[in-house]
Amino acid sequence: MKSRAAVAFEPGKPLEIVELDVADPKETEVMVKILYTSVCHTDAFTLSGDDPEGVFPAVLGHEGAGIVVKVGEKVTSVKKGDHVIPLYTPECGKCEFCLSGKTNLCSAVRTTQGKGLMPDGTTRFSYNGKPVYHYMGTSTFSEYTVVNEINLVKIDEKAPLDKVSLLGCGVTTGLGAVENTAKVEASATAAVFGLGAIGLAVIQGLKKARAERIIAIDTNPDKFALAKKMGATEFVNPKDYDRPIQEVLIEMTNGGVDYSFECIGNVEVMRSALEACHKGWGESIIIGVAGAGKEIHTRPFQLVTGRVWKGSAFGGVKGRTQLPGMVKEFMNGAIDLDSFITHRLDFTQINESFDLLHRGESIRTILTYGE
Amino acid sequence: MKSRAAVAFEPGKPLEIVELDVADPKETEVMVKILYTSVCHTDAFTLSGDDPEGVFPAVLGHEGAGIVVKVGEKVTSVKKGDHVIPLYTPECGKCEFCLSGKTNLCSAVRTTQGKGLMPDGTTRFSYNGKPVYHYMGTSTFSEYTVVNEINLVKIDEKAPLDKVSLLGCGVTTGLGAVENTAKVEASATAAVFGLGAIGLAVIQGLKKARAERIIAIDTNPDKFALAKKMGATEFVNPKDYDRPIQEVLIEMTNGGVDYSFECIGNVEVMRSALEACHKGWGESIIIGVAGAGKEIHTRPFQLVTGRVWKGSAFGGVKGRTQLPGMVKEFMNGAIDLDSFITHRLDFTQINESFDLLHRGESIRTILTYGE
Repeated sequence: MKSRAAVAFEPGKPLEIVELDVADPKETEVMVKILYTSVCHTDAFTLSGDDPEGVFPAVLGHEGAGIVVKVGEKVTSVKKGDHVIPLYTPECGKCEFCLSGKTNLCSAVRTTQGKGLMPDGTTRFSYNGKPVYHYMGTSTFSEYTVVNEINLVKIDEKAPLDKVSLLGCGVTTGLGAVENTAKVEASATAAVFGLGAIGLAVIQGLKKARAERIIAIDTNPDKFALAKKMGATEFVNPKDYDRPIQEVLIEMTNGGVDYSFECIGNVEVMRSALEACHKGWGESIIIGVAGAGKEIHTRPFQLVTGRVWKGSAFGGVKGRTQLPGMVKEFMNGAIDLDSFITHRLDFTQINESFDLLHRGESIRTILTYGE
Repeated sequence: MKSRAAVAFEPGKPLEIVELDVADPKETEVMVKILYTSVCHTDAFTLSGDDPEGVFPAVLGHEGAGIVVKVGEKVTSVKKGDHVIPLYTPECGKCEFCLSGKTNLCSAVRTTQGKGLMPDGTTRFSYNGKPVYHYMGTSTFSEYTVVNEINLVKIDEKAPLDKVSLLGCGVTTGLGAVENTAKVEASATAAVFGLGAIGLAVIQGLKKARAERIIAIDTNPDKFALAKKMGATEFVNPKDYDRPIQEVLIEMTNGGVDYSFECIGNVEVMRSALEACHKGWGESIIIGVAGAGKEIHTRPFQLVTGRVWKGSAFGGVKGRTQLPGMVKEFMNGAIDLDSFITHRLDFTQINESFDLLHRGESIRTILTYGE
């Protein structure tokens, strides 16, 4: 099968639109025709070369939606024609992690997925006869991609695939971090650091949880309007202050916030987010992905006096179990996806989508593969 | 009132046994005749001069037990003759913290207690007419001490005061960290770093919680016998390995421990304790008090992949509410205090008690004021 794809041949270089060869899915694998995808900061991070696990050449992309075109002979949960969202956090339902009841981090295909390979140690993509690596178990920057059955969730076919494709990463991560990781309760006070797609989704999650004060923090005040639309009640630009932002927040909230969320990937902001928490019970959730080798740090006294430091990956959401319900919530109006979509482009304009993201001008650009 | 006391006149010097003047308790204060006290590492830390909040001259000591001899006119919860344990973590029952249901860190007298003062900003101790500071709201190294009513819990008068004095700090801290902070469940796997009184109490707490594997870690293998008596099932001396101890523990436990407890106060051990936790759900509890300016650090990936970093002060125990029940548990045999008592000395030998602690020879030395 031939497929149009945007391939990352080298770190730090733009993607190249080429025609790849895509092999048939093996026993427990599924071929998906991706209809829509978008670019997330994690793709940009890997493309930059800073991701120590990044391998090249590779088909990046982990936020998308499409339709099943072919299934391996042992696949039982999806069939040709099903509408699906690829999941970079799979859910096998059988491993120690899936069975723990404590985490969404399925370990079934961890080793190979982290290396850009399918579980048999090979790739389904090739270019001029040479293998091209997979990425995050999804590789949505190819019109036809092959993923494991456990990296795929079937959703209601009445859902608009362009919009629900956003549930493949950022929106789910933000909503889930509030609901599953922090378990925010009504009338809580929360601070959200960074107003990209994840931060905005956290704000939306906080509003759903009926948090009372939702403090949106960004050095780019252009982001505040959308944050307000999502539900933020207060807005702070750290550049307006000449003292640590945690001090500002502690003063604003008479002691600190009940919950804070770091949605940037900056280890110094992670410290601020923790230290902005209320003594005795404040919890800080790290969502952003930091650069290679970067470390968080603080005085242990911060924890001994009751603050809790946590992290969240894919919002603690078990994709195959929980995503269909989130799609329903979107269709019922309980989740707003439309506000995240600031741009739409043809798939071939993917490098422009990266530029929009880097310049902070877009939240999400939906890329359309077309007919 | 004259009182024998061991006074810390200067950082880094031995305590001096002198006769202090102790003023009467004010309205909401209580004078206690301390019968038994013991020395904890926190006293040694402050005496060393490394504690940035340490003030001198001061009456140290925060683990003790005694009998009420005089109460201020507004005191209602204790009366002359009551058997009591001083609490360095008070419980007013009225402040934002006490009412939160989320923490034991009462804020009622925090500001003055941290400065070695009573709430009116003065001290009840003086020597040759000059004020001597209080310490941690307790100052058990004076035969007669004055504390706030909220820094005191009345206990069953049938309880042996020498033994239950240990519930004033270390034992309660360790048991509480397991029960209140980590909420360890049956059949869990746990690692305990540092086998002083707190580490041993954590082990006892883990046994009470029916943890399945209790891994005791110390660089001094002489500590392992007592750890075994308390309930430890495995023993690790980091000196026996030439690789990071977290790697050893991850291998031993096929992925990491469910819970780890740092009971030393070493920020590098705190990192090891966190990183020894199981991906997806492992929780690490910091109990040890680190030196001034020291910072914990790790890669944020450790938290994003599901580990949780917490701390615990006084084991999350609300002293006035919970300590009477713990005294009962001791009397019923559910808590073992006897095993912690490795030495007994007269109060005037207090500097020897510090030496025993520093040399790692004692767990707890009960100091007796005598008749």
